[in-house]
Amino acid sequence: MGDPISLTFGVLSTALIKSESSVRLSLAPLILIVLLSCRKTLKKLGGGLYMSEDRYERGWEKLKEVDGEAGERVIESLKDIAPDLGRYTIEFPFGDVYSRPGLDLKSREIATMAALTALGNAQPQLKVHIHGALNVGCTREEVIEVIIQMAVYAGFPAALNGMFAAKEVFKERDEKGLN
Amino acid sequence: MGDPISLTFGVLSTALIKSESSVRLSLAPLILIVLLSCRKTLKKLGGGLYMSEDRYERGWEKLKEVDGEAGERVIESLKDIAPDLGRYTIEFPFGDVYSRPGLDLKSREIATMAALTALGNAQPQLKVHIHGALNVGCTREEVIEVIIQMAVYAGFPAALNGMFAAKEVFKERDEKGLN
Amino acid sequence: MGDPISLTFGVLSTALIKSESSVRLSLAPLILIVLLSCRKTLKKLGGGLYMSEDRYERGWEKLKEVDGEAGERVIESLKDIAPDLGRYTIEFPFGDVYSRPGLDLKSREIATMAALTALGNAQPQLKVHIHGALNVGCTREEVIEVIIQMAVYAGFPAALNGMFAAKEVFKERDEKGLN
Amino acid sequence: MGDPISLTFGVLSTALIKSESSVRLSLAPLILIVLLSCRKTLKKLGGGLYMSEDRYERGWEKLKEVDGEAGERVIESLKDIAPDLGRYTIEFPFGDVYSRPGLDLKSREIATMAALTALGNAQPQLKVHIHGALNVGCTREEVIEVIIQMAVYAGFPAALNGMFAAKEVFKERDEKGLN
Amino acid sequence: MGDPISLTFGVLSTALIKSESSVRLSLAPLILIVLLSCRKTLKKLGGGLYMSEDRYERGWEKLKEVDGEAGERVIESLKDIAPDLGRYTIEFPFGDVYSRPGLDLKSREIATMAALTALGNAQPQLKVHIHGALNVGCTREEVIEVIIQMAVYAGFPAALNGMFAAKEVFKERDEKGLN
Amino acid sequence: MGDPISLTFGVLSTALIKSESSVRLSLAPLILIVLLSCRKTLKKLGGGLYMSEDRYERGWEKLKEVDGEAGERVIESLKDIAPDLGRYTIEFPFGDVYSRPGLDLKSREIATMAALTALGNAQPQLKVHIHGALNVGCTREEVIEVIIQMAVYAGFPAALNGMFAAKEVFKERDEKGLN
Repeated sequence: MGDPISLTFGVLSTALIKSESSVRLSLAPLILIVLLSCRKTLKKLGGGLYMSEDRYERGWEKLKEVDGEAGERVIESLKDIAPDLGRYTIEFPFGDVYSRPGLDLKSREIATMAALTALGNAQPQLKVHIHGALNVGCTREEVIEVIIQMAVYAGFPAALNGMFAAKEVFKERDEKGLN
Repeated sequence: MGDPISLTFGVLSTALIKSESSVRLSLAPLILIVLLSCRKTLKKLGGGLYMSEDRYERGWEKLKEVDGEAGERVIESLKDIAPDLGRYTIEFPFGDVYSRPGLDLKSREIATMAALTALGNAQPQLKVHIHGALNVGCTREEVIEVIIQMAVYAGFPAALNGMFAAKEVFKERDEKGLN
Repeated sequence: MGDPISLTFGVLSTALIKSESSVRLSLAPLILIVLLSCRKTLKKLGGGLYMSEDRYERGWEKLKEVDGEAGERVIESLKDIAPDLGRYTIEFPFGDVYSRPGLDLKSREIATMAALTALGNAQPQLKVHIHGALNVGCTREEVIEVIIQMAVYAGFPAALNGMFAAKEVFKERDEKGLN
Repeated sequence: MGDPISLTFGVLSTALIKSESSVRLSLAPLILIVLLSCRKTLKKLGGGLYMSEDRYERGWEKLKEVDGEAGERVIESLKDIAPDLGRYTIEFPFGDVYSRPGLDLKSREIATMAALTALGNAQPQLKVHIHGALNVGCTREEVIEVIIQMAVYAGFPAALNGMFAAKEVFKERDEKGLN
Repeated sequence: MGDPISLTFGVLSTALIKSESSVRLSLAPLILIVLLSCRKTLKKLGGGLYMSEDRYERGWEKLKEVDGEAGERVIESLKDIAPDLGRYTIEFPFGDVYSRPGLDLKSREIATMAALTALGNAQPQLKVHIHGALNVGCTREEVIEVIIQMAVYAGFPAALNGMFAAKEVFKERDEKGLN
Repeated sequence: MGDPISLTFGVLSTALIKSESSVRLSLAPLILIVLLSCRKTLKKLGGGLYMSEDRYERGWEKLKEVDGEAGERVIESLKDIAPDLGRYTIEFPFGDVYSRPGLDLKSREIATMAALTALGNAQPQLKVHIHGALNVGCTREEVIEVIIQMAVYAGFPAALNGMFAAKEVFKERDEKGLN
């Protein structure tokens, strides 16, 4: 929040919003210059001042990186009934959360597999994220370990059903020659 | 399961169990020798042939390493009502699961914090494991990231309540000068 | 509870229950007259003094109004294994709760869809109540909005699985030419 | 459902409801006689033809038998906000379900303690039913066994939190000199 | 998505992003003009092309409208530990979801109270949203009806605990002279 | 814990572990004699000093007694993906918990059916344990009663889905001529 570019930008845009018409015209070129010169930097900041198109684009890239084809199919299947839920699924989980620094993608997938195994009522999403975990660098052994551990926190039925989901995912990936 | 020591041991003990008295006497010294010569190796195997005292000892060490004082207090508080639940809590989660190779302790704590935040009905245990995560090398930022991510998988109330648990833990640790 | 008829009736029936045989005989005709003269009024009161056959009848009517054919099939499928669970399903949810004044049926179905989407472990009942919501006046857009909102309170997987249930229901209704 | 009294009663009351005024008057004395002569028998039947006052009374007796004072306090605390929820709590769980033959009260309390420990989000009710279990003949050892077993089906945190609830209940009962 | 302003804006910004430096300079003033002339219109669109500052502002207004002081306190309490979770709580639930047309605020609060009562592990949030429901036009009777209905879908303990939360909220509001 | 055999054994094994090589050799024959002479007694103790092979064997026997073929199929299906989860499923639930004295098997199955019906996210395990309950002496009526009762604690959808699981199990058993 405190880097010079976003501070400058914040001050300028607040000024723009609150200014009178005449002042606004003299501020506009300044803003434009800032905007054009630091587009790339801004894209990486993840702060609160982007255009949300960036959240969508960033989320879409992250979704493809993590969940691959399986993730895209989920979004596709929402198009005819609730495209906005598809858009939110891209923007918030992937554009906002998974894009955050502070935790690597592999750890994020470990957290997600653990939560979905424990909740036990979201098998389709668990399967998508077992794919995701393997896509971003988890080994099959690590997937198995996370699921076994859930026997401790959510009981054996949750762990068993999680393991059967993993079994299906591993079989699918064997057929496609994936790790 | 396939290492020579445990194979030998398995064959011998099966023989011992099924043999007649006379044969048993001649087998006994052999077993004793195996037992004495490989006690340490056996302790590390984690397989199915230990004496369960080892599970308990291994679990107790692991519990102290991970959850520290907070974990010990839980076991202590069970002594007058259900000491066996205390023993199981040491043997299965810590003696069996957390002692497994295949997933580092930091990742195990990430999985546990994720599951407990998502389930949302185990705040005391979540607090113990936020301590645990920080004890085994997670940063506070990583704890925060795992909890924020649960907003995606279990909703905002779960994430908010998880964060308030983290806030209490951080305050406790500040007072003790811990990371 | 305070209307004259039920008060009279309450006093009389308490007297009847506690009276000796001789008194009981003289009270009986009085009770009979009250009972016969105010049957219709009593039916509408919803208080604690009905015959439970009324709960069943009232519940059955409400079940047909709300859930239609789908609800009747559920009751039918219980007949050979647990007809009493079928009877309770009619009497308590529909005879008691849905028949209460104080909240319109449309709002009741919004509450039910929200709860079942959030719990995430009752897809067949969620589908029955998406039908129900559309039967009592919700638009498809409103159904979709309720389900999207659950992403906030129970996470994205719950909302996604709820939406896929809605998709199936909408398709069934398209084929039958329903709203 | 097939006993002669309730059959007679059912036929008569259906006739009464559907009859014209003149016929109704001639049927009324008959019904009255049946009603008065078999009040006690009817009370025990548990079928669908009682007056619901019986469900309430039967439920209230059962509630006092099972949950004792703790149960009554729950109903009391609802009086100023939602007395109907109090009434339903008496009528359905206790008047309908706990009054059913087919499973003894001790087994019913074992089932309830198991469910509430596993769900993990209803500690006040779990405590009421640990009291209930001990009131209807469970030993403290049996209570402890049920809760330990939940570690298998709902995870260790659920079992631990259930055990801490039991610990409080046992302490309360020690102070009152109860089993 | 199809209105002329956002289409123009979309085409221009895509062109800007993909253009070479020289072209970009000639496009920039055009974009600036569009941006300045239609700021207000853009703010109301709710589509995918806003600056996210609008989501935040819109969410903040909605949060204050719905949850009032209680909502603001939640955000405030996150400031020192996870301000981004506070920001997301404003942007996604309130800026995105509650701001959607298609379901009135009163129905949204009915859905939320139902879900939180049913889940049973988010009492603080349930209390905030009982306040919210009353703030946006629900009567106390409607709040009570929603919670009673949850006995059907999530069991009596969930409904009872929900009702005790309502009781506390009603008392707080009585003291402040609120509806 | 206080019987003479296990005390002797405990003292000897502690001595063995802490002794120097020379002492160890003189202690070894003593231990061997204890071990051989009291193998059967030790097997029944269930304490913390067994070899875990006993937990596995005891668990396997109990699993076959309770869940029969269905339980064995679960363990079998884990062999190629996570045999250790299979082993834990035998050792902890069946070798440790179900083998405990203090609660009869029938009551244990009542507790398990209640918990799995209430959680509502473990239908395959619920079906295995309905078989189990019938295998260890529950009547079909008792199974039905436990499931109906869950309508009170976890709501009607949970009870209905539990009943449909029971219906499938009863049909399977009818085909095989089982109770």
